Amino acid sequence: MSEAKKIPYKIYLEENEMPKYWYNMRADMKNKPAPLLNPGTLQPMTAQELSAVFCDELVKQELDNDTREYSIPQEILDFYKMYRPSPLVRAYCLEKKLQTPAKIYYKFEGNNTSGSHKLNSAIAQAYYAKQQGLKGVTTETGAGQWGTALSMACSYFELDCKVYMVKVSYEQKPFRREVMRTYGASVVPSPSDTTEVGRKILAKYPGTTGSLGCAISEAVEVALGNPGYRYVLGSVLNQVLLHQSVIGMETKIAMDKYGIKPDIIIGCAGGGSNLGGLIAPFMGEKLRGEADYQIIAIEPASCPSLTRGKFAYDFCDTGMVCPMAKMYTLGSGFIPAPNHAGGLRYHGMSSTLSQLYHDGYMEARSVEQTKVFQAAEEFARVEGILPAPESSHAIRAAIDEALKCKETGEEKTILFGLTGTGYFDMVAYEKFHDGLMTDYIPTDEELQKSFDTLPKV
Amino acid sequence: MSEAKKIPYKIYLEENEMPKYWYNMRADMKNKPAPLLNPGTLQPMTAQELSAVFCDELVKQELDNDTREYSIPQEILDFYKMYRPSPLVRAYCLEKKLQTPAKIYYKFEGNNTSGSHKLNSAIAQAYYAKQQGLKGVTTETGAGQWGTALSMACSYFELDCKVYMVKVSYEQKPFRREVMRTYGASVVPSPSDTTEVGRKILAKYPGTTGSLGCAISEAVEVALGNPGYRYVLGSVLNQVLLHQSVIGMETKIAMDKYGIKPDIIIGCAGGGSNLGGLIAPFMGEKLRGEADYQIIAIEPASCPSLTRGKFAYDFCDTGMVCPMAKMYTLGSGFIPAPNHAGGLRYHGMSSTLSQLYHDGYMEARSVEQTKVFQAAEEFARVEGILPAPESSHAIRAAIDEALKCKETGEEKTILFGLTGTGYFDMVAYEKFHDGLMTDYIPTDEELQKSFDTLPKV
Repeated sequence: MSEAKKIPYKIYLEENEMPKYWYNMRADMKNKPAPLLNPGTLQPMTAQELSAVFCDELVKQELDNDTREYSIPQEILDFYKMYRPSPLVRAYCLEKKLQTPAKIYYKFEGNNTSGSHKLNSAIAQAYYAKQQGLKGVTTETGAGQWGTALSMACSYFELDCKVYMVKVSYEQKPFRREVMRTYGASVVPSPSDTTEVGRKILAKYPGTTGSLGCAISEAVEVALGNPGYRYVLGSVLNQVLLHQSVIGMETKIAMDKYGIKPDIIIGCAGGGSNLGGLIAPFMGEKLRGEADYQIIAIEPASCPSLTRGKFAYDFCDTGMVCPMAKMYTLGSGFIPAPNHAGGLRYHGMSSTLSQLYHDGYMEARSVEQTKVFQAAEEFARVEGILPAPESSHAIRAAIDEALKCKETGEEKTILFGLTGTGYFDMVAYEKFHDGLMTDYIPTDEELQKSFDTLPKV
Repeated sequence: MSEAKKIPYKIYLEENEMPKYWYNMRADMKNKPAPLLNPGTLQPMTAQELSAVFCDELVKQELDNDTREYSIPQEILDFYKMYRPSPLVRAYCLEKKLQTPAKIYYKFEGNNTSGSHKLNSAIAQAYYAKQQGLKGVTTETGAGQWGTALSMACSYFELDCKVYMVKVSYEQKPFRREVMRTYGASVVPSPSDTTEVGRKILAKYPGTTGSLGCAISEAVEVALGNPGYRYVLGSVLNQVLLHQSVIGMETKIAMDKYGIKPDIIIGCAGGGSNLGGLIAPFMGEKLRGEADYQIIAIEPASCPSLTRGKFAYDFCDTGMVCPMAKMYTLGSGFIPAPNHAGGLRYHGMSSTLSQLYHDGYMEARSVEQTKVFQAAEEFARVEGILPAPESSHAIRAAIDEALKCKETGEEKTILFGLTGTGYFDMVAYEKFHDGLMTDYIPTDEELQKSFDTLPKV
């Protein structure tokens, strides 16, 4: 492919160019991610144990460190066609504004009603639930992006969808709740009196506004207690990274088509679903020694699991009912400071990404939220897209790298993931506009206290 | 082009296929739209009179009934590349759900941060303001779509942007306001003490929550009183329909490419900006006798300007400071019932569309809002896009036509305009979900009372 081929503002793949399979990075990793452990026995979780919580096919995907390619089922390909391909955008206007010789590209996942990349895995998980003949699925949601995505997916396959939404979000983000209701989901504020764990917590802390950990515990309890239901999760898990590889696959096909090779690949990282998806095929080449890329995970300074966490086994939920994973973690008791408005607030990081980071295949940086919102606003004004706070972590890093190029004169090609839009995050933007947004970096003492909650494995 | 060419889910034009000019329907109309009148002299507004309010180039476009094609300036084409082409979507999933032999297509304008087609004209109006060396522009906004679009356009060209936002919306839709602030606009709740008309109204009605008419009057006053400023408007005007023709041009190019000819074209209609843009090139063929299409305007039963209004000269604003236009109107004093949540609440209709309707080139229908929201939800669940209430009027009609085809077995091709997304309209969706949404059709007596406000011209 000629390097001289004119690069359009936006590259959309044709239907016949779209990826037909998901790529499993684990197949090419020498050091596989550590297995999930049963918190009771401390033994690796078996497929049978996991199948009480997850669909059978998803259990297989979760445990499969060997199969390189998974064919995407036709029904999922059909759904993908409704909102994919997502555009790979050349940020000509941002480059001009920054006066940088760098070439900046971003893969924009926000052009669907869930507002983010979460739909890529939601539809897959709903599909396998349907295939297994299940009645429905349960999940938790914080801000609501994952809950929205899952509602859309369940509506498409006519599955029942029960979402436990952290009570404070349920009350403060009624619009997200209404989007989920539009798609027929039942949305319950958590903690609730519909579960044992919810009732216990309500009795102990009557005024609590809820937490993600509690919502997970409720959703898992309901899945375990209702025949024909399973629990689903939107990030962290290996299966989720597998589904999200569609982001990177599309990106790579589009770049190859125009002879573009990224020097730097940047993704924001909370649980790792977007980062793991975006980098997948590039990381594959790196793991196989076929190409090299500088890969950077960006996380909030207020929730710095990769940059300041420990690589250890930890609980995936604060309720400690889920399997334990080996990952970079701040401890399952970690809660970001109340002023944190930028998302990406999970205490740990995908096992797969944690292992890759540990083995030196990628870097990590943390950024403070006021600088993130500055980047968000600068980006919105020239590129015309109002980014989600999460995505704006990657924008911040991409701008910083482009400004370095301006100093050095290097014409690097920078790729970043723009995971979603910020339409439901205007409260945070308002804080920023009103000068009320502050930064907080946890002290070493605070982190140590949180590390003390790590299980002794 | 072969009819057999496989139609993808979404058709995106390549950059080199994009329209290079706007099409002016008036050039092909035998009966031109009636001229704007000076409300003082009742004489046609001259270019000089209009140039106190509007940019010079926009005045030219407003008055030009002859030029068929306007080249789109390169700077606007560059901006269009950031969010255009918009996809022309084949609604395969909706067709399947309805089990209709009809083929349904929609042109989706919601994939940009303003959330609607309004940006197509906002960027043009900002460009001409910048070309004229102006400092800034003023406008009014109700729900905020137009204000958002204009903020984005002004940010791009570094123009000052003052938005008068109806006070009740300013307070109830803080998120829209924050999006505008993200783009650097100053947003003032109207009525305000920043203008003479605002102060008068506040003195007379201290507790008023504002109206579009008042906000227009304030925005016009500020434009007239500040050298280097002009007023801009997002619908109704001929210039706006001209810019919005880019919607129809793209649609027609995409359909021609795949050998598709629509039998029915459906657009929602408030002031007429979307409908006029979508149908432009098709109407051109119809006016020139080259092809025939069934063209249907859909309006709310609670604000039925085409279906129940009078074709007469009327004030464009309730403050009666703007020129008068000959149009289908309910009278400038008309206000939709308080339970109306579906948008499209302007009392009149574009002069150009009014003339075309009067001359029999298009039909009009009105629909009740609960049926509109039923269609919205049905569409969202199968097509994955949460539609704006405005756009859902067109969805309602498209579904109804497709169901007729199911009965008759006709394989009609239906095209409709999906103008935007409903992310900021969840209060209305909530009402609908909670069963609190009602319908209201104004009585003949109520309309007669409103017609009594028509000027005697």
